[in-house]
Amino acid sequence: MNEFAIEHIPESKYCFAENKNTVTLRLRISKYDNPEKIEVIYGGKYEYASARYTADMKRNHEDRLFAYYTATLCLKDVRLVYVFAITENGKTYFFSEDGLTEHYDYTLNYYNCFQLAYVNEIDIMKQVNWLQTATFYQIFVERFNIGNKNKDMSYVNMKWGELPEPKSFAGGDIKGITDKLEYIKNLGINALYLTPVFSSVSNHKYDISDYYEIDKNFGDKKDLKELIEKSHALGIKVVLDAVFNHCSEKLSQFQDVLKNGKNSEYYDWFIITKDSPLEYECFASCKYMPKFNTSNSEVCAFLIDIATYWIKEFDIDGWRLDVSDEVSHDFWRQFRKAVKKAKPDCVLIGENWHDANAYLRGDQYDSIMNYAFTKACLDFYAFGYFTPKQFAEKLNELLMRNSNAANGMLLNLLDSHDTHRFITQTKDNDKFLSALALLYVFVGVPCIYYGTEIALQGYHDPDSRRTFDWEKADKNTSLMRLIKHMCGLKSGGELSGASISVKENGGIIEVKRDKYKLVINGNGFVVKYSPVNESFSNKYKNGMLGGWGFVLEKI
Amino acid sequence: MNEFAIEHIPESKYCFAENKNTVTLRLRISKYDNPEKIEVIYGGKYEYASARYTADMKRNHEDRLFAYYTATLCLKDVRLVYVFAITENGKTYFFSEDGLTEHYDYTLNYYNCFQLAYVNEIDIMKQVNWLQTATFYQIFVERFNIGNKNKDMSYVNMKWGELPEPKSFAGGDIKGITDKLEYIKNLGINALYLTPVFSSVSNHKYDISDYYEIDKNFGDKKDLKELIEKSHALGIKVVLDAVFNHCSEKLSQFQDVLKNGKNSEYYDWFIITKDSPLEYECFASCKYMPKFNTSNSEVCAFLIDIATYWIKEFDIDGWRLDVSDEVSHDFWRQFRKAVKKAKPDCVLIGENWHDANAYLRGDQYDSIMNYAFTKACLDFYAFGYFTPKQFAEKLNELLMRNSNAANGMLLNLLDSHDTHRFITQTKDNDKFLSALALLYVFVGVPCIYYGTEIALQGYHDPDSRRTFDWEKADKNTSLMRLIKHMCGLKSGGELSGASISVKENGGIIEVKRDKYKLVINGNGFVVKYSPVNESFSNKYKNGMLGGWGFVLEKI
Repeated sequence: MNEFAIEHIPESKYCFAENKNTVTLRLRISKYDNPEKIEVIYGGKYEYASARYTADMKRNHEDRLFAYYTATLCLKDVRLVYVFAITENGKTYFFSEDGLTEHYDYTLNYYNCFQLAYVNEIDIMKQVNWLQTATFYQIFVERFNIGNKNKDMSYVNMKWGELPEPKSFAGGDIKGITDKLEYIKNLGINALYLTPVFSSVSNHKYDISDYYEIDKNFGDKKDLKELIEKSHALGIKVVLDAVFNHCSEKLSQFQDVLKNGKNSEYYDWFIITKDSPLEYECFASCKYMPKFNTSNSEVCAFLIDIATYWIKEFDIDGWRLDVSDEVSHDFWRQFRKAVKKAKPDCVLIGENWHDANAYLRGDQYDSIMNYAFTKACLDFYAFGYFTPKQFAEKLNELLMRNSNAANGMLLNLLDSHDTHRFITQTKDNDKFLSALALLYVFVGVPCIYYGTEIALQGYHDPDSRRTFDWEKADKNTSLMRLIKHMCGLKSGGELSGASISVKENGGIIEVKRDKYKLVINGNGFVVKYSPVNESFSNKYKNGMLGGWGFVLEKI
Repeated sequence: MNEFAIEHIPESKYCFAENKNTVTLRLRISKYDNPEKIEVIYGGKYEYASARYTADMKRNHEDRLFAYYTATLCLKDVRLVYVFAITENGKTYFFSEDGLTEHYDYTLNYYNCFQLAYVNEIDIMKQVNWLQTATFYQIFVERFNIGNKNKDMSYVNMKWGELPEPKSFAGGDIKGITDKLEYIKNLGINALYLTPVFSSVSNHKYDISDYYEIDKNFGDKKDLKELIEKSHALGIKVVLDAVFNHCSEKLSQFQDVLKNGKNSEYYDWFIITKDSPLEYECFASCKYMPKFNTSNSEVCAFLIDIATYWIKEFDIDGWRLDVSDEVSHDFWRQFRKAVKKAKPDCVLIGENWHDANAYLRGDQYDSIMNYAFTKACLDFYAFGYFTPKQFAEKLNELLMRNSNAANGMLLNLLDSHDTHRFITQTKDNDKFLSALALLYVFVGVPCIYYGTEIALQGYHDPDSRRTFDWEKADKNTSLMRLIKHMCGLKSGGELSGASISVKENGGIIEVKRDKYKLVINGNGFVVKYSPVNESFSNKYKNGMLGGWGFVLEKI
């Protein structure tokens, strides 16, 4: 055994409760080690010296370096203690808090066994049920559709269809989304994530000047209410986006500080570093976006009131949290409690681009924008950094970053308003289809950026925020059919549950998920290929095509 | 490089803020690898592609398998991003969220660098200052000293000095401690940790029937007030012990459930598993200690009120939290906030025997009873499981379990009411002295179990809870002198700060700490030996003795 590779950490992604009586354990070893057997020897904390149970650990995932063995235990006594027994070449070793040893003294277990001392219901990361069958559609509101034809359009400074500049206004609004709900529904989408809709001078509205008002160019509260009510009637959830890290300099409380300096009652709402001339912490280096001081309990109360206001008054289904990784854990814990009290199945999705395990343990968010998945797909499909084997290994690595519950809620995406369009980076329709199929079959919640279904192109911001081309919306393309088909499988519950297997063999990647198997060819040679058509889910036609094919099979 | 050994996890024991502008990073590699150089390349999140800084990582700790490199960074921009650069055989490798690579693309860092996205003051684990110079003295109240000679002694069923049985009562009380404060002060002790003093039928009082009353055999509130006031006047802190996991069946709320069953307003205060006959969760398998349901907010409020009551009314300096690992993280977060609001430097010490990192991140406790240190000392000094090298490695391993702030607050102990007496296990006075010297020089807070200074013997409970032998209290033994000397160094601030070096060389263990170096011989051959006497701290006499010697040098 390669001792350097072995890892297990209690109360972490290696050891987590699925529910009050069920605990999943993971053990990491070198993938080059193939012991005959790995078992977990477990029991109740107060009886372990005399009564123990044994469960086999299964080798379920392999990444570049490591193999991960897992077991899910059903507990009678929720005061779990355990050690691992690894048998290699006929000899059994024990792995405990003291590392790998040839012997283990069960009578001294209270010093060095692993434990999950008590499964406390309140600490368990729980699934938001509706996410299990959800496909999200992210809408950059300013560019999706103009609904209100009667509004004052004097702020609009670009023609629909032109390429946007950083400060372009095209005129999209909330009513524009409501008008297209049937279209969205027909795609198979059942959840919307809208970029911010609150008062703001920018087109993206991530610099919010009034969190209690809808931006006048986007409409009004009546429009939002109508959108949410009609969405709900169609079985579509609506998640709003807000920034709790910073605001616009135009926020009245910050204006008060600008005016009154130290005498302002809002002076401590921000992080003032110098009084005269006023200096303060802000988002990035954007002085027009001052950072909130969430160490101030008044600020926390203000922000949390905003979060619950839109839930209580408008029945929204979730919050996407901009720049969430720069706000304190302490704030998110308070925020979660208030939001979940207002609406238990309201989802919280952080914008954390990096490993966010510290936020995904059940006490803060439910989910993040899973940009690590985005990057893995880019490295494979667009950049050519990954062979199929390396891609499969990376996907397994990502699956081992978080608990099963968190994995099931991560918002997997190929692109967003903050990246290039994926199709623009792959430059290849077959690759794009393959990546989309994977997006759905992978564990988590697929999120499609508006326009994906019409292969809307775009480099980085502002180009990735082009206006939707409604003339292409009704074309019966293979892309459109794929999305509809996959949304159907997802919403039908055919792609739920935490179980997944990602393996590479001879240049072919096989992703098994519940009732479906996705086979991806990324090695340039011939595989079975299934053109996506109406009979896709029943019996696909086998073709013989080179390049980036894929096939989805019912198993 | 052995890739399997390399580890770094952001926002963990590998990456933590010391204060708003200071972050410590640790990188783990195989101890058999000796790269020419390890650097951290860091910068502000929004400027990293263009502006980066470099700091050397120093190889400071080695355990059985790994070497740990550390660097402490002073930040201008508290939105820290970083990767490591490891140079071996003239070639530089990068270590990021994507693992070890030959190249690193700084322009795509937002996908895969490490980060501490923003150092939020409120999330930082802060030191409780007085712990830095504290030595604790743990008193099992029933067995320390009888102060109130006029009380009803009819409950006493053993003579002072006899060996205790599980249900023995010897008559010790709070006034007995107050009467001995001068003695305690003279030892150099400046913090007391008392086993529970609240109403309870047992001698240990871990089954509490009234959390708002002092047990009548121990005295009354006036006695506690006097003890705390006199202690404070002598510069001695007082930490009380309570059980927030469970109570006595005699607690009025549980009695109400026994009487009224489902109709009791306290039914949901406990975890009832069957109504008739009543079954419920309890501590271990002790039906007389029902477990509290801390998922019930009323129960949380009840328990938190207890914690703050004794702070507000009696000015206690901390809580030792019995069976704390079986109570929810959620509860401890609420508990911490309330306690720290009532008294910011009130210390919270959990009874977690295992790796408690999940509780020691700044949002729950400050400290734990560090039984892993106890076990390491037993393995070396008593059981002979460890060579000096293995012991030094284990100490380093323990130091790498938690952040520097947590390490500085851990309550290190050789024994307690829940273990054998250390002297009884080592059976060797030289070993005992050596272990005690280490207890003080190691990072953390030394905790001496009452009677340690008179070499009180005892196997496991009830034997480890013998009555104090006051006839031995004034003997000028080497043991007594060592403790007084070390307490003096500790309280004088000579053994503070997080910096420590533990190394083994030729059977000799060298522990360097601030201004002192402790040399331990555990290999049976001759070393310089310093008998502890009054001139200890100035110039010790060198002796030449075989066996378990040690020497403490000012450096």
